[in-house]
Amino acid sequence: MNYRIEKDTMGEVQVPANKYWGAQTERSRNNFKIGPSASMPMEIIYGFAYLKKAAAYANCDLSVLSVEKRDAIAVVCDEILAGKLDDQFPLVIWQTGSGTQSNMNLNEVIANRAQVLKGFKIGEGEQFIKANDDVNKSQSSNDTFPTAMHVAAYKAIIEISIPGVEKLKNTLDAKASEFKNVVKIGRTHLMDATPLTLGQELSGYASQLNHRIKALKNTLPHLSEIALGGTAVGTGLNTPKGYDIKVAQYIAQFTGLPFVTAQNKFEALAAHDAIVESHGALKQLAVSLNKIANDIRMLASGPRSGIGEILIPENEPGSSIMPGKVNPTQCEALTMVCAQIMGNDVTISVGGMQGHYELNVFKPVMAANFLQSARLLGDACVSFDEHCAQGIEPNYKRIKELVDNSLMLVTALNTKIGYYKAAEIAQTAHKNGTTLKEEAVRLGYVSPEDFDAWVKPENMV
Amino acid sequence: MNYRIEKDTMGEVQVPANKYWGAQTERSRNNFKIGPSASMPMEIIYGFAYLKKAAAYANCDLSVLSVEKRDAIAVVCDEILAGKLDDQFPLVIWQTGSGTQSNMNLNEVIANRAQVLKGFKIGEGEQFIKANDDVNKSQSSNDTFPTAMHVAAYKAIIEISIPGVEKLKNTLDAKASEFKNVVKIGRTHLMDATPLTLGQELSGYASQLNHRIKALKNTLPHLSEIALGGTAVGTGLNTPKGYDIKVAQYIAQFTGLPFVTAQNKFEALAAHDAIVESHGALKQLAVSLNKIANDIRMLASGPRSGIGEILIPENEPGSSIMPGKVNPTQCEALTMVCAQIMGNDVTISVGGMQGHYELNVFKPVMAANFLQSARLLGDACVSFDEHCAQGIEPNYKRIKELVDNSLMLVTALNTKIGYYKAAEIAQTAHKNGTTLKEEAVRLGYVSPEDFDAWVKPENMV
Amino acid sequence: MNYRIEKDTMGEVQVPANKYWGAQTERSRNNFKIGPSASMPMEIIYGFAYLKKAAAYANCDLSVLSVEKRDAIAVVCDEILAGKLDDQFPLVIWQTGSGTQSNMNLNEVIANRAQVLKGFKIGEGEQFIKANDDVNKSQSSNDTFPTAMHVAAYKAIIEISIPGVEKLKNTLDAKASEFKNVVKIGRTHLMDATPLTLGQELSGYASQLNHRIKALKNTLPHLSEIALGGTAVGTGLNTPKGYDIKVAQYIAQFTGLPFVTAQNKFEALAAHDAIVESHGALKQLAVSLNKIANDIRMLASGPRSGIGEILIPENEPGSSIMPGKVNPTQCEALTMVCAQIMGNDVTISVGGMQGHYELNVFKPVMAANFLQSARLLGDACVSFDEHCAQGIEPNYKRIKELVDNSLMLVTALNTKIGYYKAAEIAQTAHKNGTTLKEEAVRLGYVSPEDFDAWVKPENMV
Amino acid sequence: MNYRIEKDTMGEVQVPANKYWGAQTERSRNNFKIGPSASMPMEIIYGFAYLKKAAAYANCDLSVLSVEKRDAIAVVCDEILAGKLDDQFPLVIWQTGSGTQSNMNLNEVIANRAQVLKGFKIGEGEQFIKANDDVNKSQSSNDTFPTAMHVAAYKAIIEISIPGVEKLKNTLDAKASEFKNVVKIGRTHLMDATPLTLGQELSGYASQLNHRIKALKNTLPHLSEIALGGTAVGTGLNTPKGYDIKVAQYIAQFTGLPFVTAQNKFEALAAHDAIVESHGALKQLAVSLNKIANDIRMLASGPRSGIGEILIPENEPGSSIMPGKVNPTQCEALTMVCAQIMGNDVTISVGGMQGHYELNVFKPVMAANFLQSARLLGDACVSFDEHCAQGIEPNYKRIKELVDNSLMLVTALNTKIGYYKAAEIAQTAHKNGTTLKEEAVRLGYVSPEDFDAWVKPENMV
Repeated sequence: MNYRIEKDTMGEVQVPANKYWGAQTERSRNNFKIGPSASMPMEIIYGFAYLKKAAAYANCDLSVLSVEKRDAIAVVCDEILAGKLDDQFPLVIWQTGSGTQSNMNLNEVIANRAQVLKGFKIGEGEQFIKANDDVNKSQSSNDTFPTAMHVAAYKAIIEISIPGVEKLKNTLDAKASEFKNVVKIGRTHLMDATPLTLGQELSGYASQLNHRIKALKNTLPHLSEIALGGTAVGTGLNTPKGYDIKVAQYIAQFTGLPFVTAQNKFEALAAHDAIVESHGALKQLAVSLNKIANDIRMLASGPRSGIGEILIPENEPGSSIMPGKVNPTQCEALTMVCAQIMGNDVTISVGGMQGHYELNVFKPVMAANFLQSARLLGDACVSFDEHCAQGIEPNYKRIKELVDNSLMLVTALNTKIGYYKAAEIAQTAHKNGTTLKEEAVRLGYVSPEDFDAWVKPENMV
Repeated sequence: MNYRIEKDTMGEVQVPANKYWGAQTERSRNNFKIGPSASMPMEIIYGFAYLKKAAAYANCDLSVLSVEKRDAIAVVCDEILAGKLDDQFPLVIWQTGSGTQSNMNLNEVIANRAQVLKGFKIGEGEQFIKANDDVNKSQSSNDTFPTAMHVAAYKAIIEISIPGVEKLKNTLDAKASEFKNVVKIGRTHLMDATPLTLGQELSGYASQLNHRIKALKNTLPHLSEIALGGTAVGTGLNTPKGYDIKVAQYIAQFTGLPFVTAQNKFEALAAHDAIVESHGALKQLAVSLNKIANDIRMLASGPRSGIGEILIPENEPGSSIMPGKVNPTQCEALTMVCAQIMGNDVTISVGGMQGHYELNVFKPVMAANFLQSARLLGDACVSFDEHCAQGIEPNYKRIKELVDNSLMLVTALNTKIGYYKAAEIAQTAHKNGTTLKEEAVRLGYVSPEDFDAWVKPENMV
Repeated sequence: MNYRIEKDTMGEVQVPANKYWGAQTERSRNNFKIGPSASMPMEIIYGFAYLKKAAAYANCDLSVLSVEKRDAIAVVCDEILAGKLDDQFPLVIWQTGSGTQSNMNLNEVIANRAQVLKGFKIGEGEQFIKANDDVNKSQSSNDTFPTAMHVAAYKAIIEISIPGVEKLKNTLDAKASEFKNVVKIGRTHLMDATPLTLGQELSGYASQLNHRIKALKNTLPHLSEIALGGTAVGTGLNTPKGYDIKVAQYIAQFTGLPFVTAQNKFEALAAHDAIVESHGALKQLAVSLNKIANDIRMLASGPRSGIGEILIPENEPGSSIMPGKVNPTQCEALTMVCAQIMGNDVTISVGGMQGHYELNVFKPVMAANFLQSARLLGDACVSFDEHCAQGIEPNYKRIKELVDNSLMLVTALNTKIGYYKAAEIAQTAHKNGTTLKEEAVRLGYVSPEDFDAWVKPENMV
Repeated sequence: MNYRIEKDTMGEVQVPANKYWGAQTERSRNNFKIGPSASMPMEIIYGFAYLKKAAAYANCDLSVLSVEKRDAIAVVCDEILAGKLDDQFPLVIWQTGSGTQSNMNLNEVIANRAQVLKGFKIGEGEQFIKANDDVNKSQSSNDTFPTAMHVAAYKAIIEISIPGVEKLKNTLDAKASEFKNVVKIGRTHLMDATPLTLGQELSGYASQLNHRIKALKNTLPHLSEIALGGTAVGTGLNTPKGYDIKVAQYIAQFTGLPFVTAQNKFEALAAHDAIVESHGALKQLAVSLNKIANDIRMLASGPRSGIGEILIPENEPGSSIMPGKVNPTQCEALTMVCAQIMGNDVTISVGGMQGHYELNVFKPVMAANFLQSARLLGDACVSFDEHCAQGIEPNYKRIKELVDNSLMLVTALNTKIGYYKAAEIAQTAHKNGTTLKEEAVRLGYVSPEDFDAWVKPENMV
């Protein structure tokens, strides 16, 4: 491979000749060979691109950057956002905990690419745009990385997580209406209980997701606060007056999302509570989805030795050894995603709780786990919706058979003959393998006519 | 010990003669010898007392319970709420996951105590009030336990957690104002950074807590939804029309808190997402508090070999072997509480994710962990506030010494001479153990006059 | 209440007149009003009693304590171990993270009680035994608390956890033998699969527990290492030569357990990896038990609308509203315990990861969570064994019905006619609601005679 | 793109013409668009390649597969292991929880590639090797995936995790010897305590890692047990006699690692306790490493306003805004890795606890998290060792200054003048900002000569 020489404040470094990155990116590449390369999420890179462009505009408005430089920076940022420079960001999550080197990766790539767009070869000529002095002007890693995190996290929730969950919720709502009169056995403690309708059962799932979406949205205001303008420790050293508000406005404008400058920049650098808070809502969502997906696979279990009350789509052969087997694979994918999110929440909390003084240095691991969770939940909801939930159908025959057979219909007699006699009827029928009616009559507690009038599953829902 | 004989639908049971509980409570006591006895939190018992009274009132209003019975039940509930019957609830957390036997414990105690208040001995005479048919009327364990959980949880947050955090936040706010002009060194990556004021540093902590209180309050609407009226599976079987709304109104009235009937009773029995959600906010609070307490003990470390920028109260001798030692014990208690809450959040999430069909059967473990967290956080904030935060004082001498000595003041030169030359000054001073000014002048980058004009810590905050 | 005046190095303190504790205990009581009082586990107090006695013996042997003082200390330690002074230890978990004040609680109670045993009133007379100089001789909180933790933890595992799990494992082993020929349907993905015997199914559970017991025992050597002799920072300052080995021998002698002095005292104070390690094994056990208990409740579900392949004991009425209902309550108690242990593991890990320099100050929270887990797991296994596992019986009728009906018996044809034709048979039978044999013959792939010869569930296990 | 038509038991599927995979892989690709493609770890694919080859050999030895077919399969497996077919495995983690489709991906690629090696184009001609009937012979996804997991996990621990930790441990051991006489201040509760040597401090870290390696090795026997031979539900249906032992021997031979057939195949399919157990040991390691890395960055903090007792390598410019700043970036990368592992442990435990009946369907998520943890820990230890630990040097000047100044040297006087007088000396010196000696003499408790003789830091370690 060919190399060129780049310099930073520590001296010279060999950098691959055809790459836009510079000395500090290359140092980081060499010093942190931990896990696969380029693991820093691209969403963070794009978040940086938004903010570098916004900073250039704000700096220009406030007369500390020329229009020419602003536009040169903005052009490269737009290229990055268009995905044209994806291979210029080789760094890993497991670098410095402030993400300084990813910030420098952006600064270096933008500076060098701008130079090339001026007609030079990479690394040649007097640098028109300087990585630290121009691209990073009025910024520090300490305020840029958290800003990139918030931009990426907010976008992921708005664009992926919430639409995915809403799609699934809408399907469950529709199914709840569709099956609102399908009376089925209820189950508590996994044991037979009084009846409800399949629609009612599904409405509980939809209600869970509805509450979860609200809770997730409740966290967005904190996430919309961005650290930019705090620079090194939150004081805003080396920023022009009014910069923090203006730069947030530009980010809001460029992303179309309601970002504002953080109420307190000291918090915004030293703690990432907004990330912990929003991920908490994602974890709560995982808790709900796990319950729902688990229920659906149990309700669909069989075909002959399970519960079998609903039918779900048969998407692929289920076994490499058992011919004809079909499995609830979407439920499995979704519950695995839920397990992942449960762990990610601990990772993020452990990172969040260990900030020191003016800086939390668990930024990249928090960002990476957050973005993984937001994407996986969104994607998995869509997949589950399209390949499973939309195809849920009642197995009417099985549902009726189980309801008719149930001993828990006896509960309807509580208000007629009292809990104790009702219990005796149920226990006797259970012991003898008979029906409630037979025993109710034999025990002399209810007449056949009354039994038929009082014990109607359809009146119990 | 003397015993009397009690009966339930399974037969006879010997019960301690002087206790109000009955057969089902006693069965549970014998069947679940897991951990210390009576571990079911008293807050849950009190939550039940509120709802049993409310149910009696609603049932009476709706003409399914006599005024006489209503009042008899209400009197005992009031006794329970006054703490007079605390020794009548011997059951453990580790029982059935619906808390059925704790519900029956209440039903039995209320029925037997009412009988005694009528002038009988315990267990004697025709039962005036029946445990299942009267006390439990229009109820199921499946809707009462979650209601008791929500009542207890809501109260704990409102009465203990939030006031505790607010008290601490107010102190931090006041200290932030008091020390707003105390310029000190900042630290990022634990390394010397540009200055800020002690007030700014503390304001970051206050801002964290402010956001956390908001987030906690955001969860209250979901927690205010109560399951009562859903009975066995959410359909409300065996309840009179209008009961669910009315009983929630009575609970609201008796507790003075804004409880409402749950939007969807199927969710309210089968999932405890509101508990997961609110505890998520408590966990986020623990994440924040851990950061704050950890910072404070580091800032106070010393007295001679640590950071030593602040002084905190000396509350007790710190060592049984090292004479004269004083330790940041309140920080330690608080961070231990935070570690507990981190784990409790996993317990609650694991419980929440495993509901089956119409019922989640991890109710008692979720309730117990929630209530522990809510109380510990509230208490620990008060303790930390009174015995530590209120006594925080700057160590002015040490603060000044460190600021004056700092190399990171060089950052003020970035906008004057550029990042690279500034770096060279700092590195040379670091290597030579000299001051920035000496090296800035020696290197010929800045005149002594300019240096004094440009590098002023008090202008950098 | 009456008070007496006690003194420590910080001055005078009012102490309840009838209590043996002194100034430092009382300071702690007042400074840490967090959660219920006296929450520090009694097992820790007893662990201290063992080590205080052992230290007195070792100090005496090494000529730094008189025989008279040794015996006076030992007598009180024996009283503590006999449970006679349980009400003298009022402190909470949430105190200083080194447990210094609980160490002083022991020192003070022993000194004051010894004085009383000499014939004085509490607090009167020249102290014969001094809390710091005699009872705490050659010790520091920093090495005593971790020693008390290891003693308590080791005992809990040996005396409660392992016996409980072994009892359950033995039952499962016996049941596995008893039902080794009961052929039943297998289930993978919750869907019908090829058959196995009930004995084989149960043997998997027994094997899990067998592996878990081994893993738990693997952790004991590290837990047997005790910190005593390290004193303040691990150097053993102020201990006589040979003390660390000798005191460990006395602890081993008094407890009957193989304690040894820690290989590295610096680790033993600054990190509690042995606690993390052993609790890791408890958490693994919880993971296994959750799977087992969950399976058993699913297998026992019904009575008419579930899987219903096994019968488990009916221990108590299952519902306050549904008469005759019986629930898998022991499974619920056990899985709730598992959820608790999952969280406790996070608490302990979070505590363990945050040690600073020469001392980890999360000792009490780690100890309390460990001891809770060890006891709950042991107790829950015993309860589950006695009230559930021992009573497991096959529901032969149901088992046979499901096996005979199963489509997955078709797998036996793979090696005869290939996977694809076998799949076609199964799919056709599923679609038509017919039997495998009917379709196998109709499709012309197998003769009736061959089918009967090839497809025998009892040959497939 | 060009496509060809492939078939499975559900019908026809379009597959990219130039890919070796078949119908079932393609279905999975389309049905599970969750997260980035090809996320199933390559280590799992390689684990499969070992076992497919071993199965072919065992099947051949047992006369159910021809030598020709065996060799054709083995050749492709060797190609996979050589990394030549890495782009043929496009599936994601978030598929069916048994990994069935990844098993089929291997089966299909091997069959189609073998056909091509015979001279055909992909998909052309009568298939010489059949995916299900030959490549998958005597196997099920249910026993192959866990076998691939164990092979991959065992290899990762042996080849990456343990060597990484040992490398770091060796460095710490060497540094502990090198600095065994460098007397420095100890710190407990972050506060000044009695002295120890830097070597002793580092020896505690080395001892932690030593214990961790032992604990990790303790888990290997369980991990060496492989499920292969259990097929669909653990009974070994459709395997020739003796196959399970023989196939394990071949895997042992091909990998050079001591794999054996699982003691109980029912456990081996239905639970992945060995994965939970080994990952538990990785989590314990993370707990230890977090403590160590955190200490090192605190000890190295400064350069002028921190602790500053050790110097660590300066690897890269630390700030994009603060010139000349250098940060403990390796500590940050390592502690971020630790946070990740803490979360992964929860994910794996949550997956492990939710198996149902004969199969755990959280296999891929457990495998992926395990392998990430094993690699990150190994890599991070190497990175930390090479770029940080090896370069640790004492800052002798600073160390001496702090020791000389310390008030906790007073502890040496305990055995001379008692704890109370010693405390008075320390407190007075603290209050007056004087030295211990001054106050000891002034208070008349110790003569200057005795003080010098008794209080020698070098005698206190």
